Amino acid sequence: MSRAVVDKTASSEIAAERRRQILAAAAVCFGRRGFHAATMPEICAEAGLSPGTVYRYFRSKDDLIEALVEQDRAESLAMLESLAAAPDILAAIGAGIAETLAAVRDPGEAAVYVEIGAEAARNPRVAAIVRRHEESVTGALAMLLRRAQGRGEIAADLDPRLAAEVIAALIDGLITRKALAPDVDLLNYAPLAQRMIEDLLRPSPKRSSA
Amino acid sequence: MSRAVVDKTASSEIAAERRRQILAAAAVCFGRRGFHAATMPEICAEAGLSPGTVYRYFRSKDDLIEALVEQDRAESLAMLESLAAAPDILAAIGAGIAETLAAVRDPGEAAVYVEIGAEAARNPRVAAIVRRHEESVTGALAMLLRRAQGRGEIAADLDPRLAAEVIAALIDGLITRKALAPDVDLLNYAPLAQRMIEDLLRPSPKRSSA
Repeated sequence: MSRAVVDKTASSEIAAERRRQILAAAAVCFGRRGFHAATMPEICAEAGLSPGTVYRYFRSKDDLIEALVEQDRAESLAMLESLAAAPDILAAIGAGIAETLAAVRDPGEAAVYVEIGAEAARNPRVAAIVRRHEESVTGALAMLLRRAQGRGEIAADLDPRLAAEVIAALIDGLITRKALAPDVDLLNYAPLAQRMIEDLLRPSPKRSSA
Repeated sequence: MSRAVVDKTASSEIAAERRRQILAAAAVCFGRRGFHAATMPEICAEAGLSPGTVYRYFRSKDDLIEALVEQDRAESLAMLESLAAAPDILAAIGAGIAETLAAVRDPGEAAVYVEIGAEAARNPRVAAIVRRHEESVTGALAMLLRRAQGRGEIAADLDPRLAAEVIAALIDGLITRKALAPDVDLLNYAPLAQRMIEDLLRPSPKRSSA
């Protein structure tokens, strides 16, 4: 590799690390004080970076929310992609649910999730960002379910899109509980949530159509 | 009835009506602009009442949130009480879910729900109010499930408390969808939500313990 390529790689790694650092600080501030009360100077202080550095990456709180949602979307899509290759789709979805619940260890993380949802309900730009995320992730889950249905691995009478939306709602509702009761361990809910979702999806010759 | 009693009844009816009117206005303002951005003068204007009248009933936005949550709690408990007397508990719970989803017709109503949740994640007084509500309603549902379990009407291997919390999370998650996508008709989700909850609760001799 030429020296220029090495430098460019190193500087893009620094940039990626800076972005992560700023986003983590923004999540802490939004979760602690809410999107409206949190300020850019506060986020700079939390990140331990100068306003000049932070503004080079993000120009506003809306930009920060957009990047936080995008980060979550990328992680969710990567997980769904790994499920697509699993030999037992029901077991893989069950494991994915436990993994998602286990990832919300920090009440602040759950709080920022709820906060972004509340902001979306009144801020059209944030609403559009959240709806794109939602469309992308729930759409990917629906596609996964549709393909598994084609292989006879999940119930033939299910509407894959509706099933994906109800599964997403259950996960959302559980994450919200963590924001309200910080001591809750979301993994306590994993066995019942898995049971509900596996029962919903499992093909059953005895099931009447729903 | 004496004249004094009639007057007192009439004036307490007026007071109850005024409270309802102010709470409806507060829900509109919180849903539209968020709890922080909404102001008491705005809520007075929305209610079409003078600040003097409004302050006679509610002294602060925290008081209004407390009353809104209390109103929701009373409605939820009344519905759960009616379920307790039903001959077929599974069908009654299914009907209760459809009724709850049908009641959230207005995106603003869903938004105020999400907004109160977000406020609870950062405001200890609101958190205490929401936790009391949660404890009371989920506790009542858990009690209903425990009694039905005693009569052999729901699966013996379920933890009633955990089941009640997961059911509440599913309903919460669905209501949140209405706040994010105002055009969504929550009743679309009712059949799948009912199927998931009925499958979870139904006693099944073939089910291995979860």
